[in-house]
Amino acid sequence: MTNAETRLAPAEFNSAELTDLLNREMRKRWSAAAERTEQMAGYALLAPGKMLRPMLLLASAEATGGDSTRLMPAALAVEYLHVATLVHDDIIDDDELRRGRATVHARFGMPDALVAGDFLILNMVSALLECEAVPPADVLDAARVLATAGADVCRGQVREAELVGELSCPVEDYREMVALKTGALFRGACRAGAILGGAAAEDVEAATRYAEHLGLGFQIYDDLLPYLADSPTTGKPSTSDVANLRPTFPVLVGHQAAGEADRARFAEALSGRMPAADAHRLMRELLTSTGALELSRKLAADEIAQARESIADLPGTAAVELMLAIAELSIDRNR
Amino acid sequence: MTNAETRLAPAEFNSAELTDLLNREMRKRWSAAAERTEQMAGYALLAPGKMLRPMLLLASAEATGGDSTRLMPAALAVEYLHVATLVHDDIIDDDELRRGRATVHARFGMPDALVAGDFLILNMVSALLECEAVPPADVLDAARVLATAGADVCRGQVREAELVGELSCPVEDYREMVALKTGALFRGACRAGAILGGAAAEDVEAATRYAEHLGLGFQIYDDLLPYLADSPTTGKPSTSDVANLRPTFPVLVGHQAAGEADRARFAEALSGRMPAADAHRLMRELLTSTGALELSRKLAADEIAQARESIADLPGTAAVELMLAIAELSIDRNR
Repeated sequence: MTNAETRLAPAEFNSAELTDLLNREMRKRWSAAAERTEQMAGYALLAPGKMLRPMLLLASAEATGGDSTRLMPAALAVEYLHVATLVHDDIIDDDELRRGRATVHARFGMPDALVAGDFLILNMVSALLECEAVPPADVLDAARVLATAGADVCRGQVREAELVGELSCPVEDYREMVALKTGALFRGACRAGAILGGAAAEDVEAATRYAEHLGLGFQIYDDLLPYLADSPTTGKPSTSDVANLRPTFPVLVGHQAAGEADRARFAEALSGRMPAADAHRLMRELLTSTGALELSRKLAADEIAQARESIADLPGTAAVELMLAIAELSIDRNR
Repeated sequence: MTNAETRLAPAEFNSAELTDLLNREMRKRWSAAAERTEQMAGYALLAPGKMLRPMLLLASAEATGGDSTRLMPAALAVEYLHVATLVHDDIIDDDELRRGRATVHARFGMPDALVAGDFLILNMVSALLECEAVPPADVLDAARVLATAGADVCRGQVREAELVGELSCPVEDYREMVALKTGALFRGACRAGAILGGAAAEDVEAATRYAEHLGLGFQIYDDLLPYLADSPTTGKPSTSDVANLRPTFPVLVGHQAAGEADRARFAEALSGRMPAADAHRLMRELLTSTGALELSRKLAADEIAQARESIADLPGTAAVELMLAIAELSIDRNR
């Protein structure tokens, strides 16, 4: 992409400008879709989102010494993959709302929505390969990284489904699942960005470590949100996890720490036999009394501290500042 | 792939040997899957199939002067993409049987099967990128070709759904849909094979034209199968197309050629108001009396003749012979 609109001066390297730039680019490509398949893809892609993963790809490229202006198609590619998983997730859960609008299958019907998700995955590949100013070997490396990331997300989703109702799942197994389901795309975005920017091997690894810790901290905090007092905007009902019998991070931590009597109450809350609101209230009580909420919050903060630490040796550019800010924000989403 | 098992002497370049080789390679990779996601992928991939598309990729590489022994992962990649579309198609149609076995969602449940399809698409990318003996720029070109092919299949599926019940769809529009839904993967396989084998530009185009005609001839014949007297093995009930109100090639050709009275009978047969067996019988009668069956058979044969003609100038190797034989076989599937 060489047109002026997609260039970004280093001084503009901040979250608001980048989100705006990415949304503009997305609209340019998808708002005038003539064909139904592209209209569905555009409908899914143009829902207002944070553009977190594309932003990470661009920031990681800049932070490791690369030039992010040539990488806009790769940044969009990561969002295509992310949105594809959302479209398919919504089919699986039969959720009718996402980001305040009808989900793709609610709007266009399941069959076409399923195909639209596939279309987005394939567009991920095509978009990435638009980065023609990047040496072919680096594009191939980045493609490998993103394909592996996508496959890992699939593994994580299947693993998560296997854990439903499994209160005695070791916390370590849960972390592994999260590293796949949530961490893999953060990792893929940061690693691909560094590779496409031509980063030195150790800087690629630094960006990768950052992303791994970020993914874990992000997900642990996400798991906490339904139980935090002031119910921030999570985009889903706070009863969703217990209603779906999902043993999330604080639940596993709490169950592990609990005595026999409390374990029975954990099992009751996650049995599906109580009304969701009651189950959710009981679970919050248990997570508070066992100290699991506080401990989980601390563990999330630890991951974020390690994410920040991972990129401490990179030159202190605006891009590194952005990555540090993204890390902070991921465990304090009301800001 | 440099191990002896995957090498193929030119003399062995025939359909039976190649199918066997491809099936062996597939089993080697997928039969010992430890994880549920890979087990599902393996379950889908190891169902006995003709391996037509991977065979086309290898044959196209050889026929245009390349060495197919290094391209085994790319050949498998095309099959991953093909099988992914089958897994998702079966979810959409809620078909419970495929190739004589339970479909993936019938066996593993819809949510995981949907994810398994995504996993296969992403493995398509990873497998293709294993071709490390091929110059990176050629791998990138082939990846572009296959990603576009996959996206075109999606467009074709959506377009096909739009045509349900549309008896007055111009035959030309139907051909365009077929070029996407069926032709795109044949085209992608042949074109990617030629590119990966390092073919000259005009030979890449020859292989591409071959595949485009093959795809069309293949699909027209596929549309005819339910109406041919001796009901060959199509893998689906012969009433399926009318039951799903699909205006297939012979139906559109017949409807276009029919007078007012016959058009009303076509509409009746495709209205969904008759029992499927009766509708199918009426449709066969109409296709015979309007001459649509004979005309469609001739048009399929014309496409196959053009497919064969497209590669007439390639050196007469065993690979070219195989491509010619595949073309013949695609309009005579009882052999």
